[in-house]
Amino acid sequence: MNIGVLGTGDVGKTIATRLVALGHSVRMGSRAKGNEKALAWVEAAGARASEGSFADAASFGELVFNCTKGDATLAALEAAGAASLRGKVLVDVSNPLDFSKGFPPSLTVSNTDSLGEQIQRAFPEARVVKALNTMANPIMVDPRRLEGTHHTFVSGNDAAAKGAVRELLGTFGWRPEEIIDLGDITTARGTEAYLLLWTRLYAATKNGMFNVGLVSAKG
Amino acid sequence: MNIGVLGTGDVGKTIATRLVALGHSVRMGSRAKGNEKALAWVEAAGARASEGSFADAASFGELVFNCTKGDATLAALEAAGAASLRGKVLVDVSNPLDFSKGFPPSLTVSNTDSLGEQIQRAFPEARVVKALNTMANPIMVDPRRLEGTHHTFVSGNDAAAKGAVRELLGTFGWRPEEIIDLGDITTARGTEAYLLLWTRLYAATKNGMFNVGLVSAKG
Repeated sequence: MNIGVLGTGDVGKTIATRLVALGHSVRMGSRAKGNEKALAWVEAAGARASEGSFADAASFGELVFNCTKGDATLAALEAAGAASLRGKVLVDVSNPLDFSKGFPPSLTVSNTDSLGEQIQRAFPEARVVKALNTMANPIMVDPRRLEGTHHTFVSGNDAAAKGAVRELLGTFGWRPEEIIDLGDITTARGTEAYLLLWTRLYAATKNGMFNVGLVSAKG
Repeated sequence: MNIGVLGTGDVGKTIATRLVALGHSVRMGSRAKGNEKALAWVEAAGARASEGSFADAASFGELVFNCTKGDATLAALEAAGAASLRGKVLVDVSNPLDFSKGFPPSLTVSNTDSLGEQIQRAFPEARVVKALNTMANPIMVDPRRLEGTHHTFVSGNDAAAKGAVRELLGTFGWRPEEIIDLGDITTARGTEAYLLLWTRLYAATKNGMFNVGLVSAKG
C-alpha cells in the first residue's frame, strides 16, 4: 500500500521504517520537501521510501499516519490539506503534550475534549482513528518485544477505518485480542489522558519500555 | 489497628469489611451518626465494627480511609475536621468524577491539579496517600481474584505514610512488586486522569473486573 507518514521525529521514523520493511511504499512528510531528517531516513530506508511536504505525503498515501507532535498537529494537517485527506484513514498517533513547564508534561486539551476529536472536527471527511499513542514507539511497531499479553486501543467514528487499522496493527505483531476498540473518537479522551499516568510511570520506572495489559478475573 | 473509613458507599463498605476481617477495629463515618447504611454495615460486620459521624470516624482512626464520592470529599473532610486528621495517614481512594452529563463521567479537577492535591493542600497536617483509586472495589481488597500480575499505585509526600499503606495493601493480598510508588502527591494527576480511560474500558469490555498490569521488555 502507499502510505503517508507525517512527522520526522522518532515516532514517524519508527513507523515509516516498519511500514517499508513490511513491503509498503512510504512517503515521509515534513514542513518542506528536502527536510534533513527526512532525507536521512529515505537514504537509510531504501527504494520504497520517499519524502516531501506534508501535502506530498498526504496525497501519496492511501492511508496516512499523523506522527507530528501534538502542538504542531493541526498546523501540519492544515498544510497537508483537507483535499489530500478526504476519505482516507488518518491514523492519529499524536498526544497533546505541553512541555512548556518541563517534565512531566500537562495536556493542551483534555477531559471534555481531545486532540483526536479536534482533528476529526477540523477534517470531517478524513476517517480519523486514534491508535498507538499509549506507548513508546519501539513497542508500537513490535509489540512482541514485551513479555506477554498487553493492549492497544483504537478510537474512531468509522468502523471500516478501525478495521483497516486493526489489520495493519496485526502486521506489526499485535494479536487481535490485544486491540481494544474503545468506541467513537471521543474515547480518545481516555487514551490521551492516560499520558498523564504514562509519563509518571516512565519517571517512576526510569524505563519507557513497558505497556499495560488488562488483567481479568479468574475463570 | 483502629481505622476510620469515611463513606458508606460500596467502596467504603468493601474496604471496611476487609479491614474488620483482617482483625482491625473499624469505625465507618457518614454525615451524621445513625446513618442507615452504616448501621446495616455494623450489624453485618460484627463486634469490631462501629459507626458515627465523619468526625467520630476520623478521631477513632489511627489511619483513615477517604471513600467518599469525589464531589463530596472536601466537605466530608471538613466535617471530619483538621484536628481529627492531624498527623494521620489519610488514604484517599476517591476520584473527582462528574456524572452530571451521564456516563462516561468527566473530571471536576484534572491535568494540572488533582483531588489528592486539593486534599493535601486543605489538610496540610494530614499525610495523604492516594491509592487504590484505579480499579473496582472488589479488586482493591482482594487483588488475587484476578489472573496474574497487575499493579496499584501510591502517590504522596510522606515516605513513611506510603510505607504504612504499602504494608496494609500487602495484607489485602498485593505483592510488594505490584505496588508502584509514583512519587509525590502531584502524581495523583496521573491515576485520577486514568479514570477517563478506565471508564471507557469498562464500557468497552462491559465488565469492571479488570486491572492493568505493567508488561515489560523481554530479558
